[in-house]
Formats: sequence, structure tokens, C-alpha cells
Amino acid sequence: MSPSEPDPVAIVGASGALGFGLAVRFARAGVPIAIGSRDAARGQEAAERASAVVPSGSFSAYDNAGAVRAADTVILSVPFRNQSETLANLKDALRPGQLLIDATVPLAAAVSGKATRMLGVWQGSAAQQAAEMVPAGVRVVSALHTVSAASLSDLDHPLDQDVLICGDARADKREAAALIERIAGLRCVDCGRLEMARTTESLTALLIAVNSRYKAHAGIRLTGLPDGLWE
Amino acid sequence: MSPSEPDPVAIVGASGALGFGLAVRFARAGVPIAIGSRDAARGQEAAERASAVVPSGSFSAYDNAGAVRAADTVILSVPFRNQSETLANLKDALRPGQLLIDATVPLAAAVSGKATRMLGVWQGSAAQQAAEMVPAGVRVVSALHTVSAASLSDLDHPLDQDVLICGDARADKREAAALIERIAGLRCVDCGRLEMARTTESLTALLIAVNSRYKAHAGIRLTGLPDGLWE
Repeated sequence: MSPSEPDPVAIVGASGALGFGLAVRFARAGVPIAIGSRDAARGQEAAERASAVVPSGSFSAYDNAGAVRAADTVILSVPFRNQSETLANLKDALRPGQLLIDATVPLAAAVSGKATRMLGVWQGSAAQQAAEMVPAGVRVVSALHTVSAASLSDLDHPLDQDVLICGDARADKREAAALIERIAGLRCVDCGRLEMARTTESLTALLIAVNSRYKAHAGIRLTGLPDGLWE
Repeated sequence: MSPSEPDPVAIVGASGALGFGLAVRFARAGVPIAIGSRDAARGQEAAERASAVVPSGSFSAYDNAGAVRAADTVILSVPFRNQSETLANLKDALRPGQLLIDATVPLAAAVSGKATRMLGVWQGSAAQQAAEMVPAGVRVVSALHTVSAASLSDLDHPLDQDVLICGDARADKREAAALIERIAGLRCVDCGRLEMARTTESLTALLIAVNSRYKAHAGIRLTGLPDGLWE
């Protein structure tokens, strides 16, 4: 491994649309990806698909627990319906010091409702549910809810948008931002404490409504911000 | 009145920061403004301040009910703490056919909480509370939560952002958009039904958090949308 090669990133739920889109974008940016899926065979299949899209990419396939063991940074990209069960199953695989980037959105679609409506989560947000469930010492930030899976998977699609990051520790958010900004066209903005994920998660439902109206893959951009958002 | 002069717009709460900023921006765009305030004297004072900022502007001063009687379009720009009382007091002034653009945000600051936190509103959002309270036939849309009052009041500040509009009737949203887009630098986006105001209102709290972090007056822009959003 060359000294400049970035650390690998595990994607839990990488056979899903958002997870797969992130896998190919990160891989194209040179980040080795540990593909996780509920069963290793589906992980393998996703890794093969990803390799076909990014032949130069470094993909290894696991079940979700295997992927989590293979990287220090973990992106959780599963449907809300599965978030709690997934985190319960990962209890022994997650370890102190890891950074978990939660991208879960509690859409009402999880309970056969509309994708333009949110579920109320007792903890406040899916991200706060994740923070409550991970073993002590795992650092949780919330991000990546507003980047369309379709746009990520289409490598020719210019992203040109912001990623809104919430978390209780500035250093954790900065670490996540440094990773995410490896993807061309994404700028990360610090949106405050983890509890603000209530709003950033709900932007997914808003964008689904907008996309449905305009047949688009809209993203979010905050205007009026200075340069150097992570200094 | 020349045939091309736009209809007047009433601003309820125009002595507040957001209402005042909207008043001067609309006036500069040639829209006659009926300034409303809880008492007519404060309305008069706001109209004088506005005239000093936009000497060419057409401002008339009223109490809130007087302003509502003077225009077919009403912008409701009051603190959430006063929204319900204000609408109750306007019951006899509002009339069927009027368009009410609700800009209220249920920040926790209304109950001495933080401006980065939201209150839960039983109806779902401040806009839905407004829709429940207005007389039958008054059309309610939700908009203008994410445009900073400070940026509006500073006429030299380029706005360069979107206004997210929610409402149950496309025609009402289009009418609001045509008005709001008279302000240079604002583009209106149809964000779906009135219930989506839960999210657009909460963006105010998010932007307050971002602005606090970055000492900025951030706005929202949606990327990836086609031209002609109101055709």
C-alpha cells in the first residue's frame, strides 16, 4: 500500500441504491471500499457490479459485519426499516474509535406510507437512534441524505451540491467531510449538533416531492457561506 | 394607477425584521405595500423607516386588520408566539379569495427555548395551523422561511437563493411565486403540499445553526432543477 492511499471505507447496505452509488463514487476517487450486504453473496454481486462501473476501483465483498471489521470508517446506508436490526447485529463488529456516518432516513415508506412523509422517531432522528445503539466509543455523524442515489451511480452526472453534516463533535464532522469531499462536486457544510439530523433527514422527503414534481434529481446548496468551511 | 402597477400586498408584522425586509424589497420592485403592525403607530413608524430606505416605494400604514383589508394578498410574518392570536384577531378582516402567504416558523425561541430547535405543532406546522384558522375561502401557502431578514433589509446584499413554496393548490403557489420572484435574486420552487411546510419551516432552525457557525446569512438553493419551474 502506498503511503498516500486512503484508508478503506465500509459501506453497510452497499447493494442498495444509495450505498452502491457511494461505493462507485468513492472508488473512483481512489478510496478502497469494503462492500457490506446482509448476505455475503449479495455483497459479492454488488462488488462485481461496482468493478464493472469502476474497473480501477478497489472493492472487497463481505457481509455487513465483515465489512465493518475491515475499515475504521463505516457508512450506514440501509432502509430505515432495517436500521435498528442492522445496528443490533453489528454490535460485536463495531469497535471504539470507529466513525459511523449514518445516512438513514425515516421515510414513512418504511411502514408502507409515502416517501414524501417522515416517521417520527422517539429519539428525534434516525441518526440519534444510531448514536443510541452503537457501542460506546463509536463516533456517529449524520450525512448524505440529500444526494440522490441515481446521480451518484451515474458517474457522468455532475453533483454540484452540498452535503449537510450533523454531529456532536466538530472533529468527527471534519473527518467525515474530508472523506466525503473526495467525491468531486460535493461540498460539506457543518449543520450543527446531531439533533439537527431531524431536519436534514427530512430534506430527503422534501427532495422526493420536488423530484416528483420536476422529474429531476435535485440536490441542496447553501448560498452565502464563506470559503474554508472546515478550517 | 397605471395599468401595469402591481396589486398591493399587505404585510402583517411588517415592523418585525423579516416583514420589514420584505416590505423594502417588494417596494423597490414596484409593489405597493400595506404595512401592518399590532398597533397603527408602530405601523406608521415602520412605514417611515421603509420610505427612508426606498424613497420611491409606496407604503401605507395600518394596524394588522387595516392592512389585511387593503390588499388581496397577505404575507403573515409574525413570531410563532403571536401567530394564533394574530389570526384570531384577523378573523373578521380576512375574506374569501385572499391569498395568505404564511412565513411563520415555530422556533423553540417562542417558549424561551433555542432558535436552533423547533416546537412540535399539533397540526404539523405553523402553515397548517394558519390554514386551520383562516376563514373559509382564504387560500394559504407557506413560503419565505429561509430568506434571512438581514439580507432582505440590506438592499445591496445579493440574495441568490430559492424560496421553497408549499401549498395544496398549484395555482395558489404559482400566484405566490409570481409575486415573490419580483424580488431580484429569488427563485421559487414548488415543494409540494402544505404539509411539507414541516420541513421548510425547520430549515430556519438549521440555517440559524449554520449562520451561527459560519457568521453568515446562508440561504437555500436547490440544484439540478430544470428551467421554467412554474409553467
